[in-house]
Amino acid sequence: MNPTHIEHIGFAVKDLEESIRYWEKVFGLKCYRVEEVADQKVRTAFFRLGATKIELLESTDPGGPIGKFIEKRGEGMHHIAFAVDDVQAALEQATENNIALIDKVPRAGAEGLQIAFLDPRSTYGVLTELCATPKPDK
Amino acid sequence: MNPTHIEHIGFAVKDLEESIRYWEKVFGLKCYRVEEVADQKVRTAFFRLGATKIELLESTDPGGPIGKFIEKRGEGMHHIAFAVDDVQAALEQATENNIALIDKVPRAGAEGLQIAFLDPRSTYGVLTELCATPKPDK
Repeated sequence: MNPTHIEHIGFAVKDLEESIRYWEKVFGLKCYRVEEVADQKVRTAFFRLGATKIELLESTDPGGPIGKFIEKRGEGMHHIAFAVDDVQAALEQATENNIALIDKVPRAGAEGLQIAFLDPRSTYGVLTELCATPKPDK
Repeated sequence: MNPTHIEHIGFAVKDLEESIRYWEKVFGLKCYRVEEVADQKVRTAFFRLGATKIELLESTDPGGPIGKFIEKRGEGMHHIAFAVDDVQAALEQATENNIALIDKVPRAGAEGLQIAFLDPRSTYGVLTELCATPKPDK
């Protein structure tokens, strides 16, 4: 699927505002956006560091994916997202390599990106997201 | 500490050769180096993706840090490393921000870098590494 770069790293956090202060104060980064993604039951905060973003994810529902992750494993690194040219084509390549998919077709993610997740049981325990900026003609 | 970029992301893996094949075949990346870091009880493999490296870590001893991590949590994302100009200065800034340190002074890591780890109990569960290329005059 030949990703161009790591688009972002996602971190599960208990308290979004407290974690934003940590990344701003200790790392000198600037939070440029806070966004709720209702269907993922999260509030997210974004920072830029070079070509890669830091995405903080706070659960809005204990039964949502981040709520369950923190319940099981605590706060910490949650997923890694790779920028690809075409998410649908990347999913087809993943399937050809016997990688199981969480999302069989691309869906809308934060920041207007097209995204899809691979199943971590196929990716050596790494929750892996693929994302792309939608093409103007799609 | 104003990192310039994410230097690498570390992944704990059970079988280094199998995981190298996964990253090469599925992501089209090329492993450019395999290195044993005896004092960390790991064998590591590196790939480049933009400014950031992917570092795979296979334990050489079940009692080492990666062996214990996999025993407790399974394979997956293990740590994130930020490139800073001066690791010692970054550690001093971290201490001023009440961040507990695993390494109180920089030490030698893979690829000839100066490295130090922050204590994940101070960093919202994120095992955080700081690293820098040693200055020629040091």
